[in-house]
Amino acid sequence: MPHLVILYTPQIETETDMKLLCRRLADAMSSVKDEAGKQVFPIAGIRVFAYPAMHFAVADGSGEHAFVYFNLRMARGRSETAKHNAGASVTAAAREHFAPLLARRGLGLTLQVDEGEEVFDAKFGNLHPLFNKT
Amino acid sequence: MPHLVILYTPQIETETDMKLLCRRLADAMSSVKDEAGKQVFPIAGIRVFAYPAMHFAVADGSGEHAFVYFNLRMARGRSETAKHNAGASVTAAAREHFAPLLARRGLGLTLQVDEGEEVFDAKFGNLHPLFNKT
Amino acid sequence: MPHLVILYTPQIETETDMKLLCRRLADAMSSVKDEAGKQVFPIAGIRVFAYPAMHFAVADGSGEHAFVYFNLRMARGRSETAKHNAGASVTAAAREHFAPLLARRGLGLTLQVDEGEEVFDAKFGNLHPLFNKT
Repeated sequence: MPHLVILYTPQIETETDMKLLCRRLADAMSSVKDEAGKQVFPIAGIRVFAYPAMHFAVADGSGEHAFVYFNLRMARGRSETAKHNAGASVTAAAREHFAPLLARRGLGLTLQVDEGEEVFDAKFGNLHPLFNKT
Repeated sequence: MPHLVILYTPQIETETDMKLLCRRLADAMSSVKDEAGKQVFPIAGIRVFAYPAMHFAVADGSGEHAFVYFNLRMARGRSETAKHNAGASVTAAAREHFAPLLARRGLGLTLQVDEGEEVFDAKFGNLHPLFNKT
Repeated sequence: MPHLVILYTPQIETETDMKLLCRRLADAMSSVKDEAGKQVFPIAGIRVFAYPAMHFAVADGSGEHAFVYFNLRMARGRSETAKHNAGASVTAAAREHFAPLLARRGLGLTLQVDEGEEVFDAKFGNLHPLFNKT
Protein backbone atom coordinates (compact mmCIF):
# COMPACT_ATOMS: atom_id res chain seq x y z
CA MET A 1 0.00 0.00 0.00
CA PRO A 2 -0.97 2.53 -0.99
CA HIS A 3 -2.46 2.03 -4.36
CA LEU A 4 -4.34 4.32 -6.64
CA VAL A 5 -6.72 3.05 -9.30
CA ILE A 6 -7.93 5.42 -11.99
CA LEU A 7 -11.05 4.62 -14.00
CA TYR A 8 -11.74 6.90 -16.92
CA THR A 9 -13.77 7.40 -20.04
CA PRO A 10 -11.59 6.59 -23.04
CA GLN A 11 -12.19 9.69 -25.15
CA ILE A 12 -9.60 11.63 -23.10
CA GLU A 13 -6.85 9.19 -24.06
CA THR A 14 -5.82 11.43 -26.94
CA GLU A 15 -6.51 14.68 -25.09
CA THR A 16 -4.14 14.33 -22.16
CA ASP A 17 -1.11 12.25 -21.23
CA MET A 18 -2.42 9.58 -18.89
CA LYS A 19 0.97 7.91 -18.51
CA LEU A 20 2.39 11.19 -17.29
CA LEU A 21 -0.56 11.57 -14.92
CA CYS A 22 0.26 8.22 -13.33
CA ARG A 23 3.86 9.27 -12.76
CA ARG A 24 2.80 12.62 -11.31
CA LEU A 25 0.34 11.01 -8.91
CA ALA A 26 2.87 8.41 -7.80
CA ASP A 27 5.27 11.25 -7.06
CA ALA A 28 2.52 13.08 -5.16
CA MET A 29 1.92 9.95 -3.10
CA SER A 30 5.59 9.60 -2.26
CA SER A 31 5.71 13.20 -1.03
CA VAL A 32 2.87 12.87 1.50
CA LYS A 33 3.92 13.64 5.08
CA ASP A 34 2.11 13.15 8.37
CA GLU A 35 1.88 15.66 11.22
CA ALA A 36 5.38 14.76 12.37
CA GLY A 37 6.82 15.38 8.90
CA LYS A 38 7.35 11.66 8.36
CA GLN A 39 6.80 10.11 4.92
CA VAL A 40 3.43 8.36 4.96
CA PHE A 41 3.83 5.87 2.12
CA PRO A 42 6.72 3.46 1.61
CA ILE A 43 8.10 3.86 -1.92
CA ALA A 44 7.94 0.13 -2.63
CA GLY A 45 4.21 0.03 -2.00
CA ILE A 46 3.25 2.83 -4.36
CA ARG A 47 1.49 1.83 -7.54
CA VAL A 48 -0.89 3.64 -9.83
CA PHE A 49 -3.04 1.73 -12.31
CA ALA A 50 -5.10 3.56 -14.95
CA TYR A 51 -7.93 1.90 -16.87
CA PRO A 52 -9.92 3.41 -19.72
CA ALA A 53 -13.40 1.91 -19.81
CA MET A 54 -14.35 -0.16 -22.84
CA HIS A 55 -17.91 1.17 -22.57
CA PHE A 56 -19.37 3.92 -20.45
CA ALA A 57 -22.24 6.29 -19.80
CA VAL A 58 -21.90 9.65 -18.07
CA ALA A 59 -24.73 11.76 -16.66
CA ASP A 60 -27.76 11.90 -18.96
CA GLY A 61 -25.86 11.16 -22.13
CA SER A 62 -26.16 14.69 -23.43
CA GLY A 63 -22.82 16.06 -24.55
CA GLU A 64 -19.59 14.12 -24.73
CA HIS A 65 -18.79 14.47 -21.06
CA ALA A 66 -15.75 12.67 -19.74
CA PHE A 67 -15.17 11.32 -16.24
CA VAL A 68 -12.11 10.35 -14.28
CA TYR A 69 -12.47 8.56 -10.97
CA PHE A 70 -9.53 8.17 -8.61
CA ASN A 71 -9.62 5.66 -5.78
CA LEU A 72 -6.73 5.68 -3.36
CA ARG A 73 -6.62 2.78 -0.94
CA MET A 74 -4.35 3.20 2.02
CA ALA A 75 -3.64 1.04 5.04
CA ARG A 76 -6.04 1.63 7.88
CA GLY A 77 -5.05 3.21 11.16
CA ARG A 78 -3.22 6.26 9.81
CA SER A 79 -3.70 9.61 11.52
CA GLU A 80 -6.39 12.01 10.35
CA THR A 81 -3.65 14.31 9.13
CA ALA A 82 -2.04 11.56 7.10
CA LYS A 83 -5.36 10.68 5.48
CA HIS A 84 -6.15 14.28 4.70
CA ASN A 85 -2.71 15.03 3.35
CA ALA A 86 -2.82 11.96 1.14
CA GLY A 87 -6.13 12.99 -0.39
CA ALA A 88 -5.19 16.64 -0.71
CA SER A 89 -1.80 15.93 -2.26
CA VAL A 90 -3.13 13.60 -4.95
CA THR A 91 -6.07 15.91 -5.63
CA ALA A 92 -3.75 18.89 -6.07
CA ALA A 93 -1.57 16.99 -8.55
CA ALA A 94 -4.60 15.74 -10.49
CA ARG A 95 -6.17 19.18 -10.54
CA GLU A 96 -3.02 20.68 -11.97
CA HIS A 97 -2.72 17.95 -14.58
CA PHE A 98 -6.30 18.36 -15.74
CA ALA A 99 -6.50 22.17 -15.67
CA PRO A 100 -6.01 22.56 -19.45
CA LEU A 101 -8.64 19.90 -20.19
CA LEU A 102 -11.13 21.38 -17.71
CA ALA A 103 -10.84 24.67 -19.54
CA ARG A 104 -12.12 23.16 -22.77
CA ARG A 105 -14.46 20.23 -22.14
CA GLY A 106 -17.03 18.72 -19.77
CA LEU A 107 -15.09 16.58 -17.31
CA GLY A 108 -16.13 15.05 -14.01
CA LEU A 109 -13.31 14.44 -11.53
CA THR A 110 -13.84 12.61 -8.26
CA LEU A 111 -11.18 11.37 -5.89
CA GLN A 112 -11.90 9.20 -2.89
CA VAL A 113 -9.59 7.77 -0.28
CA ASP A 114 -10.56 4.48 1.31
CA GLU A 115 -8.96 2.84 4.28
CA GLY A 116 -8.48 -0.83 3.58
CA GLU A 117 -10.58 -3.07 5.81
CA GLU A 118 -8.95 -6.26 4.61
CA VAL A 119 -9.27 -9.41 6.72
CA PHE A 120 -6.17 -10.95 5.15
CA ASP A 121 -3.13 -9.27 3.69
CA ALA A 122 -0.05 -10.80 2.09
CA LYS A 123 2.92 -9.09 0.49
CA PHE A 124 5.07 -11.66 -1.26
CA GLY A 125 6.95 -9.78 -3.95
CA ASN A 126 10.53 -8.54 -3.97
CA LEU A 127 10.16 -4.75 -4.17
CA HIS A 128 10.18 -3.87 -0.48
CA PRO A 129 13.70 -5.23 0.10
CA LEU A 130 14.90 -3.32 -2.99
CA PHE A 131 13.78 -0.04 -1.48
CA ASN A 132 14.74 -0.73 2.12
CA LYS A 133 18.45 -1.10 1.43
CA THR A 134 19.38 2.16 3.05
CA MET B 1 -21.59 9.63 -6.89
CA PRO B 2 -23.03 7.25 -7.65
CA HIS B 3 -20.91 5.16 -9.87
CA LEU B 4 -21.39 1.76 -11.32
CA VAL B 5 -18.49 -0.44 -12.40
CA ILE B 6 -19.17 -3.49 -14.54
CA LEU B 7 -16.59 -6.27 -14.77
CA TYR B 8 -17.32 -8.95 -17.33
CA THR B 9 -15.93 -11.87 -19.22
CA PRO B 10 -15.08 -10.76 -22.76
CA GLN B 11 -16.82 -13.48 -24.75
CA ILE B 12 -20.15 -11.68 -24.39
CA GLU B 13 -18.81 -8.59 -26.16
CA THR B 14 -20.19 -9.87 -29.46
CA GLU B 15 -23.33 -11.37 -27.96
CA THR B 16 -24.91 -8.30 -26.39
CA ASP B 17 -24.59 -4.54 -26.68
CA MET B 18 -22.58 -3.47 -23.67
CA LYS B 19 -22.59 0.17 -24.66
CA LEU B 20 -26.36 0.13 -24.68
CA LEU B 21 -26.32 -1.62 -21.30
CA CYS B 22 -24.29 1.23 -19.83
CA ARG B 23 -26.78 3.78 -21.11
CA ARG B 24 -29.73 1.79 -19.80
CA LEU B 25 -28.19 1.43 -16.36
CA ALA B 26 -27.31 5.11 -16.18
CA ASP B 27 -30.94 5.88 -17.01
CA ALA B 28 -32.07 3.42 -14.34
CA MET B 29 -29.84 5.18 -11.83
CA SER B 30 -31.24 8.58 -12.70
CA SER B 31 -34.79 7.32 -12.17
CA VAL B 32 -34.25 6.08 -8.60
CA LYS B 33 -36.52 7.75 -6.05
CA ASP B 34 -36.48 7.65 -2.26
CA GLU B 35 -39.51 7.23 0.03
CA ALA B 36 -40.47 10.85 -0.45
CA GLY B 37 -40.41 10.51 -4.24
CA LYS B 38 -37.24 12.59 -4.45
CA GLN B 39 -34.55 11.73 -7.02
CA VAL B 40 -31.73 9.91 -5.21
CA PHE B 41 -28.81 10.49 -7.55
CA PRO B 42 -27.69 13.84 -8.99
CA ILE B 43 -27.37 13.53 -12.77
CA ALA B 44 -23.89 15.02 -12.83
CA GLY B 45 -22.56 12.29 -10.54
CA ILE B 46 -23.80 9.33 -12.58
CA ARG B 47 -21.19 7.33 -14.43
CA VAL B 48 -21.08 3.76 -15.60
CA PHE B 49 -17.78 2.13 -16.54
CA ALA B 50 -17.67 -1.32 -18.17
CA TYR B 51 -14.52 -3.41 -18.35
CA PRO B 52 -14.10 -6.72 -20.14
CA ALA B 53 -11.42 -8.80 -18.44
CA MET B 54 -8.28 -9.57 -20.41
CA HIS B 55 -8.12 -13.00 -18.73
CA PHE B 56 -10.62 -14.80 -16.56
CA ALA B 57 -11.77 -18.04 -15.00
CA VAL B 58 -15.37 -18.83 -14.08
CA ALA B 59 -16.58 -21.65 -11.82
CA ASP B 60 -14.76 -24.93 -12.48
CA GLY B 61 -13.79 -24.11 -16.05
CA SER B 62 -16.29 -26.54 -17.53
CA GLY B 63 -18.39 -24.91 -20.19
CA GLU B 64 -17.91 -21.45 -21.58
CA HIS B 65 -19.73 -19.72 -18.76
CA ALA B 66 -19.79 -15.95 -18.76
CA PHE B 67 -20.02 -13.64 -15.76
CA VAL B 68 -21.02 -10.03 -15.31
CA TYR B 69 -20.44 -8.33 -11.98
CA PHE B 70 -22.02 -4.97 -11.20
CA ASN B 71 -20.77 -2.84 -8.34
CA LEU B 72 -22.72 0.29 -7.51
CA ARG B 73 -21.06 2.61 -5.05
CA MET B 74 -23.30 5.24 -3.54
CA ALA B 75 -22.72 7.89 -0.92
CA ARG B 76 -23.25 6.66 2.60
CA GLY B 77 -26.08 7.78 4.79
CA ARG B 78 -28.96 7.29 2.38
CA SER B 79 -32.22 5.83 3.65
CA GLU B 80 -32.85 2.10 3.54
CA THR B 81 -35.50 2.74 0.91
CA ALA B 82 -33.09 4.70 -1.25
CA LYS B 83 -30.50 1.93 -1.04
CA HIS B 84 -33.02 -0.76 -1.84
CA ASN B 85 -34.55 1.18 -4.71
CA ALA B 86 -31.14 1.85 -6.20
CA GLY B 87 -30.24 -1.83 -6.16
CA ALA B 88 -33.64 -2.98 -7.37
CA SER B 89 -33.82 -0.45 -10.19
CA VAL B 90 -30.40 -1.27 -11.63
CA THR B 91 -31.03 -4.99 -11.19
CA ALA B 92 -34.33 -4.77 -13.05
CA ALA B 93 -32.73 -2.92 -15.96
CA ALA B 94 -29.83 -5.40 -16.13
CA ARG B 95 -32.17 -8.36 -15.91
CA GLU B 96 -34.20 -7.06 -18.82
CA HIS B 97 -31.10 -6.37 -20.87
CA PHE B 98 -29.69 -9.84 -20.31
CA ALA B 99 -32.90 -11.83 -20.67
CA PRO B 100 -32.16 -12.92 -24.26
CA LEU B 101 -28.62 -13.97 -23.37
CA LEU B 102 -29.75 -15.85 -20.25
CA ALA B 103 -32.08 -17.88 -22.43
CA ARG B 104 -29.22 -19.25 -24.48
CA ARG B 105 -25.98 -19.46 -22.47
CA GLY B 106 -24.50 -19.97 -19.02
CA LEU B 107 -24.23 -16.54 -17.43
CA GLY B 108 -23.60 -15.49 -13.86
CA LEU B 109 -24.98 -12.09 -12.88
CA THR B 110 -24.28 -10.49 -9.53
CA LEU B 111 -25.05 -6.94 -8.48
CA GLN B 112 -23.90 -5.43 -5.22
CA VAL B 113 -24.43 -1.99 -3.80
CA ASP B 114 -21.76 -0.60 -1.50
CA GLU B 115 -21.96 2.49 0.60
CA GLY B 116 -18.76 4.44 0.26
CA GLU B 117 -16.74 4.63 3.48
CA GLU B 118 -14.24 7.10 2.11
CA VAL B 119 -12.09 9.09 4.52
CA PHE B 120 -11.45 11.80 1.93
CA ASP B 121 -13.59 12.92 -0.96
CA ALA B 122 -12.94 15.60 -3.57
CA LYS B 123 -15.02 16.60 -6.55
CA PHE B 124 -13.07 18.98 -8.73
CA GLY B 125 -14.51 18.65 -12.21
CA ASN B 126 -16.96 20.88 -14.04
CA LEU B 127 -20.01 18.66 -14.56
CA HIS B 128 -22.01 19.49 -11.44
CA PRO B 129 -22.42 23.18 -12.34
CA LEU B 130 -23.50 22.14 -15.87
CA PHE B 131 -26.37 20.13 -14.48
CA ASN B 132 -27.35 22.48 -11.67
CA LYS B 133 -28.29 25.38 -13.94
CA THR B 134 -32.00 25.08 -13.36
CA MET C 1 -19.19 -14.74 -4.37
CA PRO C 2 -16.32 -15.00 -4.07
CA HIS C 3 -14.62 -13.01 -6.69
CA LEU C 4 -11.02 -12.23 -7.31
CA VAL C 5 -9.90 -9.19 -9.28
CA ILE C 6 -6.30 -8.97 -10.45
CA LEU C 7 -4.83 -5.62 -11.46
CA TYR C 8 -1.39 -5.77 -13.03
CA THR C 9 1.22 -3.84 -14.92
CA PRO C 10 1.10 -4.91 -18.56
CA GLN C 11 4.78 -5.64 -19.17
CA ILE C 12 4.40 -9.08 -17.56
CA GLU C 13 1.81 -10.12 -20.15
CA THR C 14 4.51 -11.73 -22.25
CA GLU C 15 6.54 -12.99 -19.30
CA THR C 16 4.01 -15.24 -17.62
CA ASP C 17 0.74 -16.94 -18.52
CA MET C 18 -1.96 -14.81 -16.93
CA LYS C 19 -4.77 -16.95 -18.28
CA LEU C 20 -3.26 -19.96 -16.57
CA LEU C 21 -2.89 -17.92 -13.38
CA CYS C 22 -6.62 -17.19 -13.40
CA ARG C 23 -7.43 -20.88 -13.73
CA ARG C 24 -5.00 -21.81 -10.97
CA LEU C 25 -6.42 -19.23 -8.59
CA ALA C 26 -10.01 -20.28 -9.33
CA ASP C 27 -8.98 -23.84 -8.50
CA ALA C 28 -7.31 -22.63 -5.31
CA MET C 29 -10.52 -20.85 -4.35
CA SER C 30 -12.63 -23.93 -4.95
CA SER C 31 -10.34 -25.98 -2.70
CA VAL C 32 -10.67 -23.73 0.37
CA LYS C 33 -12.08 -25.48 3.42
CA ASP C 34 -13.28 -24.14 6.74
CA GLU C 35 -12.48 -25.55 10.20
CA ALA C 36 -15.09 -28.28 9.72
CA GLY C 37 -13.57 -29.36 6.42
CA LYS C 38 -16.49 -27.91 4.50
CA GLN C 39 -15.95 -26.21 1.14
CA VAL C 40 -16.08 -22.45 1.69
CA PHE C 41 -16.92 -21.18 -1.79
CA PRO C 42 -19.75 -22.41 -4.00
CA ILE C 43 -18.36 -23.31 -7.43
CA ALA C 44 -20.97 -21.26 -9.27
CA GLY C 45 -19.88 -18.09 -7.50
CA ILE C 46 -16.19 -18.33 -8.33
CA ARG C 47 -14.86 -15.88 -10.88
CA VAL C 48 -11.44 -14.42 -11.49
CA PHE C 49 -11.01 -11.30 -13.61
CA ALA C 50 -7.53 -10.08 -14.63
CA TYR C 51 -6.90 -6.57 -15.94
CA PRO C 52 -3.61 -5.22 -17.27
CA ALA C 53 -3.43 -1.48 -16.70
CA MET C 54 -3.32 0.74 -19.77
CA HIS C 55 -1.00 3.12 -17.90
CA PHE C 56 0.80 2.75 -14.61
CA ALA C 57 3.50 3.96 -12.28
CA VAL C 58 5.27 1.78 -9.73
CA ALA C 59 7.41 2.96 -6.82
CA ASP C 60 9.77 5.81 -7.77
CA GLY C 61 9.89 4.98 -11.45
CA SER C 62 13.43 3.68 -11.31
CA GLY C 63 13.71 0.28 -12.91
CA GLU C 64 11.00 -1.51 -14.82
CA HIS C 65 9.28 -2.86 -11.74
CA ALA C 66 6.06 -4.77 -12.20
CA PHE C 67 3.17 -5.07 -9.78
CA VAL C 68 0.30 -7.49 -9.41
CA TYR C 69 -2.49 -6.74 -6.97
CA PHE C 70 -5.02 -9.38 -6.01
CA ASN C 71 -8.29 -8.47 -4.35
CA LEU C 72 -10.50 -11.28 -3.16
CA ARG C 73 -13.97 -10.25 -2.07
CA MET C 74 -15.87 -12.83 -0.06
CA ALA C 75 -19.24 -12.78 1.62
CA ARG C 76 -19.14 -11.38 5.13
CA GLY C 77 -19.75 -13.45 8.19
CA ARG C 78 -17.40 -16.34 7.45
CA SER C 79 -15.32 -17.81 10.25
CA GLU C 80 -11.83 -16.52 10.93
CA THR C 81 -10.48 -19.85 9.74
CA ALA C 82 -12.38 -19.61 6.47
CA LYS C 83 -11.06 -16.10 5.85
CA HIS C 84 -7.51 -17.07 6.66
CA ASN C 85 -7.62 -20.24 4.59
CA ALA C 86 -9.03 -18.33 1.62
CA GLY C 87 -6.22 -15.80 1.74
CA ALA C 88 -3.52 -18.36 2.39
CA SER C 89 -4.69 -20.71 -0.36
CA VAL C 90 -4.81 -18.06 -3.07
CA THR C 91 -1.51 -16.58 -1.89
CA ALA C 92 0.18 -19.98 -2.05
CA ALA C 93 -1.06 -20.58 -5.59
CA ALA C 94 0.00 -17.10 -6.72
CA ARG C 95 3.38 -17.44 -5.06
CA GLU C 96 4.02 -20.70 -6.86
CA HIS C 97 2.90 -19.26 -10.19
CA PHE C 98 5.16 -16.24 -9.88
CA ALA C 99 8.25 -17.95 -8.45
CA PRO C 100 10.09 -18.05 -11.82
CA LEU C 101 9.33 -14.39 -12.50
CA LEU C 102 10.34 -13.31 -8.99
CA ALA C 103 13.71 -14.92 -9.57
CA ARG C 104 14.46 -12.66 -12.50
CA ARG C 105 12.73 -9.27 -12.17
CA GLY C 106 11.42 -6.65 -9.75
CA LEU C 107 7.86 -7.60 -8.95
CA GLY C 108 5.52 -6.40 -6.22
CA LEU C 109 2.80 -8.84 -5.20
CA THR C 110 0.05 -7.92 -2.77
CA LEU C 111 -3.06 -9.91 -1.98
CA GLN C 112 -5.89 -8.64 0.15
CA VAL C 113 -9.12 -10.27 1.20
CA ASP C 114 -12.10 -8.03 1.80
CA GLU C 115 -15.39 -9.00 3.31
CA GLY C 116 -18.20 -7.50 1.31
CA GLU C 117 -20.21 -4.88 3.19
CA GLU C 118 -22.86 -4.57 0.52
CA VAL C 119 -26.21 -3.02 1.40
CA PHE C 120 -27.93 -4.73 -1.53
CA ASP C 121 -27.09 -7.98 -3.25
CA ALA C 122 -28.78 -9.66 -6.20
CA LYS C 123 -27.84 -12.82 -8.00
CA PHE C 124 -29.92 -13.18 -11.14
CA GLY C 125 -27.93 -15.35 -13.49
CA ASN C 126 -28.28 -19.03 -14.28
CA LEU C 127 -25.02 -20.55 -13.04
CA HIS C 128 -26.00 -21.50 -9.51
CA PRO C 129 -28.72 -23.94 -10.63
CA LEU C 130 -26.23 -25.50 -13.08
CA PHE C 131 -23.86 -26.35 -10.27
CA ASN C 132 -26.46 -27.31 -7.67
CA LYS C 133 -27.83 -30.25 -9.62
CA THR C 134 -26.37 -32.86 -7.32
